Amino acid sequence: MSESALPVFEMHPYLWGNPATPGELPHAAQELLAALGATAPPAAVDPADAALPDAALPPEALAALGAAVGAEHVRTDHEARVRHTGGFSTPDLLKLRAGDGSDAPDAVVYPGSHDEVVAVLTACSEHNVAVVPFSGGTSVVGGLTAARDGFAGVIALDPRRMDAVLGIDEVSRTAVLQPGLRGSRAEAELNEAGYTLGHFPQSYEAATIGGYAAARSAGQSSAGYGRFDEMVESLTLATPRGALTLGTAPKSGAGPDLRQLVLGSEGAFGVITSVTVKVHPKPTSRVFEGWRFPDFTAGAAAARALVQDGPLPTVLRLSDEAETGVNLADPAAAGSGGAGGCLMITGYEGSPSQTSLMQSGVSALLGAHGAESLGEEPGEKWRTGRYRGPYLRDQLFEAGGLVETLETATFWSNIDNLKASVTAALMDSLGANTMVLCHISHVYYAGASLYFTVLTTADADPIAQWGRAKHAANAAIRSAGATITHHHGVGTDHRDTYAQEIGPLGVDVLRAVKASLDPRGIMNPGILIAGTPA
Amino acid sequence: MSESALPVFEMHPYLWGNPATPGELPHAAQELLAALGATAPPAAVDPADAALPDAALPPEALAALGAAVGAEHVRTDHEARVRHTGGFSTPDLLKLRAGDGSDAPDAVVYPGSHDEVVAVLTACSEHNVAVVPFSGGTSVVGGLTAARDGFAGVIALDPRRMDAVLGIDEVSRTAVLQPGLRGSRAEAELNEAGYTLGHFPQSYEAATIGGYAAARSAGQSSAGYGRFDEMVESLTLATPRGALTLGTAPKSGAGPDLRQLVLGSEGAFGVITSVTVKVHPKPTSRVFEGWRFPDFTAGAAAARALVQDGPLPTVLRLSDEAETGVNLADPAAAGSGGAGGCLMITGYEGSPSQTSLMQSGVSALLGAHGAESLGEEPGEKWRTGRYRGPYLRDQLFEAGGLVETLETATFWSNIDNLKASVTAALMDSLGANTMVLCHISHVYYAGASLYFTVLTTADADPIAQWGRAKHAANAAIRSAGATITHHHGVGTDHRDTYAQEIGPLGVDVLRAVKASLDPRGIMNPGILIAGTPA
Repeated sequence: MSESALPVFEMHPYLWGNPATPGELPHAAQELLAALGATAPPAAVDPADAALPDAALPPEALAALGAAVGAEHVRTDHEARVRHTGGFSTPDLLKLRAGDGSDAPDAVVYPGSHDEVVAVLTACSEHNVAVVPFSGGTSVVGGLTAARDGFAGVIALDPRRMDAVLGIDEVSRTAVLQPGLRGSRAEAELNEAGYTLGHFPQSYEAATIGGYAAARSAGQSSAGYGRFDEMVESLTLATPRGALTLGTAPKSGAGPDLRQLVLGSEGAFGVITSVTVKVHPKPTSRVFEGWRFPDFTAGAAAARALVQDGPLPTVLRLSDEAETGVNLADPAAAGSGGAGGCLMITGYEGSPSQTSLMQSGVSALLGAHGAESLGEEPGEKWRTGRYRGPYLRDQLFEAGGLVETLETATFWSNIDNLKASVTAALMDSLGANTMVLCHISHVYYAGASLYFTVLTTADADPIAQWGRAKHAANAAIRSAGATITHHHGVGTDHRDTYAQEIGPLGVDVLRAVKASLDPRGIMNPGILIAGTPA
Repeated sequence: MSESALPVFEMHPYLWGNPATPGELPHAAQELLAALGATAPPAAVDPADAALPDAALPPEALAALGAAVGAEHVRTDHEARVRHTGGFSTPDLLKLRAGDGSDAPDAVVYPGSHDEVVAVLTACSEHNVAVVPFSGGTSVVGGLTAARDGFAGVIALDPRRMDAVLGIDEVSRTAVLQPGLRGSRAEAELNEAGYTLGHFPQSYEAATIGGYAAARSAGQSSAGYGRFDEMVESLTLATPRGALTLGTAPKSGAGPDLRQLVLGSEGAFGVITSVTVKVHPKPTSRVFEGWRFPDFTAGAAAARALVQDGPLPTVLRLSDEAETGVNLADPAAAGSGGAGGCLMITGYEGSPSQTSLMQSGVSALLGAHGAESLGEEPGEKWRTGRYRGPYLRDQLFEAGGLVETLETATFWSNIDNLKASVTAALMDSLGANTMVLCHISHVYYAGASLYFTVLTTADADPIAQWGRAKHAANAAIRSAGATITHHHGVGTDHRDTYAQEIGPLGVDVLRAVKASLDPRGIMNPGILIAGTPA
């Protein structure tokens, strides 16, 4: 049952995941791209040769940062800077592959404690230095590319030294976690103590607790364990004005729930320096199964029945016809052409009696909704391959493909409309040679997420090519009344659509909160909300 | 199964609930008070004779309000004003019983739509008039007593004309409700359509949807249906600057969850003019049962096991030894002396197969934790009497008693410490002749609420007497690290302790949000947070 075998690794600046286990593009996918006329892109630039801006931080700012954390924890060398350049959105990757390191920070600062984080933020306020909280570095929405304008420089604040499980309350079933702790490491340490966090996003190998909290991460077992923002009971935010500590009880009637104002704030208000999260007994039983539905509508109706009437499995995921057709739930076989219909994966975790009860209830309901059982093999294939999908992106680039994902969520009655609108917008923008695949991977009583994977052939300017498609998808999502992101976050890529989603008063509220906690505006400027208008 | 039989009524200004069904103090309770030496208080003043301040609203402000909603929807007569004077905290009641109507608004304004609410707030901004959103009027924390200082006057904004179920989405299982709709009426209308909201706070007969949302109400079936703030999917807030509409999906990764900033804002940011809430199929089966535990610790451990390991019943409630001893779960028999140990009530609602599954699972777990089954009779007694408790307060006053409740919540590992600390603080303050009773009525994975009922004999100045006790309880709650309120809200009574709970940066955040949405500071001034410091 343990996830503890995952190794610790340093991620390449623009190749996803553990460098020791690179992706391998299935032959069928290569053939598919070749048949579409894809041609290999220019050779990727070695990160050591990427062009970074001159490190601009004034000596007095560097000295203040050294005083805050110790000079040995402030780095300005090329390697540290290039490793903290942008995230893993397709535009981020394409820029760095081309040797464009213009988004690099001037320095990387590694605080070792909450107090050191506050000291760093204080120093940066005094010296007008922008701060990018950079933890796992896996943002796919431009969340790590701060605006430089008007600042003396930009630092990346990397909390990797703050990577401990600080304590477990076995009665309340909570654990206190530091922000620099990787999700996979947190899970391994909790497993050793007999617990699970139950949070398994696709970025699980590299992303960290602080990033999960700051960006409202949702993992593949969200049906069973909840989203990360639902796991957080208490938290501390280090701001340029000091600490904000929230969460005196699981639920309270004392005013607004300010925890929910910090969760999702993406570093724009401060740096989350600890979270107290729910933990669960480590499961002693785990079963994953596959099911085939005749079509997406039937599968979605069954998923809705599971979440509205129960029993809800721990994992619930439904691929549409297109995604099922290219076998995307099994990265090792992607592109090989699957069976028809729509594949659903269900997973059950807990004690043997709990999983048995879930499995029998879910099976009865799905059978009644017309599902054909495919047994455990497709479930296990999905489970063991579930972190491998993003590895393929790099190989697809090399083969002349352009692949990206985007996601949204809405209420059940709007799911079909939203899916059709976004698909049409992407196809219209990218034209022939394009496949739009979709799945539901997070369900709620009143609605669900939709996750799109887009595969096309790259043209001569793939950044602009994707930019147009993304713009069209954003507009379709907004026009359908859905949210611009279910769990990827806002960053810079969703900022303008997000402003429309919450309206001018919503933006003003965020600006007011930012102005209160970060009066100099140094925290991740340009992320989440645009700068305060003059 | 329907709750629709509840009549519509106009509540007396200081007597709780439906005037057609006044409380009857059980003989045993009367004897108990007499034995403690309680003596009857001075006769209560008729509300028609209460001393109200002169209605101070300038004619131009009145004219602007008339223009906003129609002159017939602006009232300045004694009856309308006295019916909108304060809420139902013990100090509120004692003041009005004594004829002190100094908290009366200058006028009562009844808008009929969101746009009319915005027009009222705009007019009040222009004319510097404070606005108290007054819906059900059942606040027990001084949430309806706005600060007058610096304003040209104060109005109560009563949304009772906005009382419709605007629509039901049967696919998403949501309903759109207006703020002036009483909870009992919402439930009846939803029942007619085949649904239940599942929200049954003790104020259910009189409180409204807008109040539930603004004050984070929690109902007696929270284990099954969630708290009101968990039911809300979308909402619209009318502010002096216009509308803020939030909730494009059940869950989103798009920035902070601003819905959770409006829920619990207690009218300090604006007036909630509609909410979209989850609804559930009307249950076709309902079973309530009683259980006896040897002591509170054993019962609390069993409650914790139900919420952490399942199955969780729809209703779960555990009285401590003292509350069980005075039979408080059965208002008709209160004070008669119950059996020993601790009484737990469990309730199951749903389809027959759902309730049967819950009942067998819960019974097995509780049996394993040492519970003795008492069958359905105590459960049914509690269920049928569950809105009657507050009616006894008025009769207890008349008999020379002083009774009040307060509540808090914390993590499971802190429950025993919190219960002992608050009990000791209340006993120390009120001295002999005092009983402190306690129950758990809301459970969460990581913690639970504690609800205290305090009964003592009134001294010559019961407002001051209770003020000292409340102050001591607040300090004990804060000192134990718990929240100052689980579901009663902040109002004015909890404001100072709340400020300590969220700290100076938390208060600054709320002030910043208020300044953004309500630049003139007219919305429920002094509620939730103190005025902005000069």
